[in-house]
Amino acid sequence: MNVFIVFAHPEPTSLNGTIKDIAVKILKNNGHEVKISDLYGINFKAVLDQEDFASRKNPESFNPMIEQVNAVANGTLPQDIQDEVEKLKWADILILQFPVWWSSMPAILKGWIDRVFLPGVVHNMGEGKVYNEGLLNGKKAMLSFTTGSPQELYSSEGPHGDLNEAFRSITHTIFEFAGLEVMPSFGLYGAAMRSEEDVKMELEKFKQVLNSI
Amino acid sequence: MNVFIVFAHPEPTSLNGTIKDIAVKILKNNGHEVKISDLYGINFKAVLDQEDFASRKNPESFNPMIEQVNAVANGTLPQDIQDEVEKLKWADILILQFPVWWSSMPAILKGWIDRVFLPGVVHNMGEGKVYNEGLLNGKKAMLSFTTGSPQELYSSEGPHGDLNEAFRSITHTIFEFAGLEVMPSFGLYGAAMRSEEDVKMELEKFKQVLNSI
Repeated sequence: MNVFIVFAHPEPTSLNGTIKDIAVKILKNNGHEVKISDLYGINFKAVLDQEDFASRKNPESFNPMIEQVNAVANGTLPQDIQDEVEKLKWADILILQFPVWWSSMPAILKGWIDRVFLPGVVHNMGEGKVYNEGLLNGKKAMLSFTTGSPQELYSSEGPHGDLNEAFRSITHTIFEFAGLEVMPSFGLYGAAMRSEEDVKMELEKFKQVLNSI
Repeated sequence: MNVFIVFAHPEPTSLNGTIKDIAVKILKNNGHEVKISDLYGINFKAVLDQEDFASRKNPESFNPMIEQVNAVANGTLPQDIQDEVEKLKWADILILQFPVWWSSMPAILKGWIDRVFLPGVVHNMGEGKVYNEGLLNGKKAMLSFTTGSPQELYSSEGPHGDLNEAFRSITHTIFEFAGLEVMPSFGLYGAAMRSEEDVKMELEKFKQVLNSI
């Protein structure tokens, strides 16, 4: 399988970095091909703005969706987006590896979605090519994340509410919308509070997930 | 009242820009003070990273939360964050004005949360100062947004699911977590598909909301 890992933690030696390294090692050992986008490492531009569109459909007023459709149709995407699109097309499985900040993705990863999940690449709204007809149909996607708060706080009865419910705005309205089959998420909760031994046990669960790919 | 509007659309002449302008005009006419952060206009840095911390608690390994706590305690926040923190402290009401991209905030606005909603400013986890004890207690907050998809698609029975549910990761785990009282959201759904007359009618509803402040 071709596995594309998008990594969004600013510190390579963080637990997120360790998890990403484990994934790369196991997947390669198991004969898979792996590509990585280390968003902080490549200083990925997080903000969808006019600078993404050298050639404009409407130079008077900037409508991001209209310019995205136009840039995809005319092949005028900037190189950094084109690189990500090619990895996305290449991949059988997409893994997003990130720390949960404010019950959501870090801005740099949201910006990767905003800029790379393009009309004409991941969906085609005009032709109804969304959800089961989404353009990434046949591929799978998975969230792998760490949280500061322990899992009790993220239970459905806990103060924050069920994080998997909150993540439906990723797993459903991004992944499934684009036609991706959603794999179960791997969450390492309460990362900072756990003992080294405890983290190791959690990582064993992650390795099992990876070995089942 | 002091009203702080955080505006996150790349095009000043967009419908989002119009809605923001209407809010400013009505609020000022009604005797309120208004401050704005036009995130695209000021080219707000969206990404929380090491550059935010000139003086580091731990120069060896970058842990964002630890460095944020340290920078707030020592007054070493960069000026752009400090400016936002001051507006936040000044405000009685915070309004986030944005286009919904992927059932969520644009990355630049998520980055504003990541960088400005600081420990020691909006909450103090260590002392249990979250939710009812959150440091922004006594202030209110409101989402004002536009969507591409019409409201039927965002109903609880619709394909995307209820957007207000998805937005609980903002209204509950960001706003309420920080002690903010949540005002009802104003959503202008299916913005691009509406007639000018229809948009006007929706904006009248928004004006009523503003006049009730």
